[in-house]
Amino acid sequence: MTAYNDPAVDDAGNLIIPTIDDVYEAHERIKPHIHRTPVLTSEYFNQLTGAELFFKCENLQKAGVFKARGGSNAVFSLSYEKAKIGVATHSSGNHATAISYAAGRRGIKATVVMPRTAPQAKKDAVRGYGGIIVECEPSTTSREATFAEVVAESGADFIHPYNDPRVIAGQGTCALELNEQVENLDAVIAPIGGGGMVSGTCLTLSNIAPDIKIYAAEPLNADDAARSLKAGYIIADDAPDTIADGLKVPLKDLTWHFVSNHVTEILTATEEEIIDAMELMWKRMKIVMEPSSAVPLATIIKNPEIFAGKRVGVIITGGNVDLHKLPWLNQ
Amino acid sequence: MTAYNDPAVDDAGNLIIPTIDDVYEAHERIKPHIHRTPVLTSEYFNQLTGAELFFKCENLQKAGVFKARGGSNAVFSLSYEKAKIGVATHSSGNHATAISYAAGRRGIKATVVMPRTAPQAKKDAVRGYGGIIVECEPSTTSREATFAEVVAESGADFIHPYNDPRVIAGQGTCALELNEQVENLDAVIAPIGGGGMVSGTCLTLSNIAPDIKIYAAEPLNADDAARSLKAGYIIADDAPDTIADGLKVPLKDLTWHFVSNHVTEILTATEEEIIDAMELMWKRMKIVMEPSSAVPLATIIKNPEIFAGKRVGVIITGGNVDLHKLPWLNQ
Repeated sequence: MTAYNDPAVDDAGNLIIPTIDDVYEAHERIKPHIHRTPVLTSEYFNQLTGAELFFKCENLQKAGVFKARGGSNAVFSLSYEKAKIGVATHSSGNHATAISYAAGRRGIKATVVMPRTAPQAKKDAVRGYGGIIVECEPSTTSREATFAEVVAESGADFIHPYNDPRVIAGQGTCALELNEQVENLDAVIAPIGGGGMVSGTCLTLSNIAPDIKIYAAEPLNADDAARSLKAGYIIADDAPDTIADGLKVPLKDLTWHFVSNHVTEILTATEEEIIDAMELMWKRMKIVMEPSSAVPLATIIKNPEIFAGKRVGVIITGGNVDLHKLPWLNQ
Repeated sequence: MTAYNDPAVDDAGNLIIPTIDDVYEAHERIKPHIHRTPVLTSEYFNQLTGAELFFKCENLQKAGVFKARGGSNAVFSLSYEKAKIGVATHSSGNHATAISYAAGRRGIKATVVMPRTAPQAKKDAVRGYGGIIVECEPSTTSREATFAEVVAESGADFIHPYNDPRVIAGQGTCALELNEQVENLDAVIAPIGGGGMVSGTCLTLSNIAPDIKIYAAEPLNADDAARSLKAGYIIADDAPDTIADGLKVPLKDLTWHFVSNHVTEILTATEEEIIDAMELMWKRMKIVMEPSSAVPLATIIKNPEIFAGKRVGVIITGGNVDLHKLPWLNQ
């Protein structure tokens, strides 16, 4: 039993599984607060991979990350009474930014627990939107302990970075748009950390386009989701080390529900493959995106037998990177 | 008298002024070869400038630059007989890339004269599309002399980087799209070097939306166009030095026609202002763009009295930059 509310379960302790109607409602609710992000194509990458790739650019989303969707949905679905007490969360960075962004739009207080090792760019972004940072050590254990103290003191509503039906329904709006923007997709691939974006994608596509296969992409250095899917139960690692800093967290019960039911396969890439794909995307697609966002392309390049000849939606999840610490400058 | 054809004049030596119908024809002709680039907005930059900014992202264009429009229009409007001999041009880099791209699409030979000091990324891009590079010294004088030799040897059709009605009509398709994508613009601003993009913008907007004011933005270190507009005649500098390497070339008679008739004002920015605006755009808009593309925003930040309260289209011209030599890493 944790010392704070678990948004994934109801009072009886049962999982709250969001529905496709929750996704439609989320989309109406958050439209004033998010961008309908563009889908970019690149002949270069089509030739390189043999697939037809459609990049849904959530790096161009508000707050620089898809999490503005789930964060806005959670913040704006709160009652007035709950909202005025404020919200709190823990995050490796991007969810913190998104919650701070959404809380700022609603004019309420957001407190976020972040690892002290989180990129400076992400800390700056949180503070820029008015969020209050409480630092912890870079492990799941330390993060959860610190967070319990924060919530006990403030009474804030906990918005989980991914194991939260409001957040998953919000992330599901991305696949809703993608499916409107691109016809006849064969597959969609997204990076997987805690599984929020992948779960939202599963929720939406399994309802509106069940023939589209869903893949997830994960750093080999933090491949707990891939091992979980093979094992048939959640495997969680404490503090894995990867440049894809958004993908270090483990699956939880609600995201496991969607991942285990709807994901065809979880593919992995090495650190070097991720950095190479990242640099190549900056160079050829002219977009700023963070290492996590490069993992899907790295796995597509690595697994042509899966994707060649297919129309594939690729979710570019975020663009919050320190422009003074680009990984290819240290290779 | 040059040793090669001047695409700006007819056999009688009169300027060939492209018309709005040429722009519409160009758009139909080049549609299979270009992206309809997205228009991005940023609340951050709106708050910073007090204006409502709409960024037309030609850095996301084919070949990474708006010049794919003019280059494709010129290459695909050639007769079969002329095309099979090939095309040639001189360029500080981006027009070279664009011509190589378009010639590659048509399957014809492209020879480009480039300054030896052009960014390696641009040389690589030209070669990547199959273009043949002949190097010259980084001055207009050297470039024109080298180019005369190339054309004398090959008999290739000269596609001028900007002083060419086919190129200007092609660039005009950008403003055509922008005016469809954003309603009720008050102003449009684009960087100015030789004036191709600005001329295309003038051609289109003066015909279809004459109330929209057209501004140009130029590095203070290469402010020949600003001085020209004030003086009332073309002033050309040989080899100015600016980080905005796409904007070093002078106006010519055809671009002067459009600039002198339709541009309200040419604003300038220092090297430091350009680099700061560039880094800020990478950081907040998550797009990779070259220094030239940052000059308009630098001038908007500098001149709030002109733009505050206005709806302003900002043309981001290109994204071909060396990711290993980012200017803010050397400051």
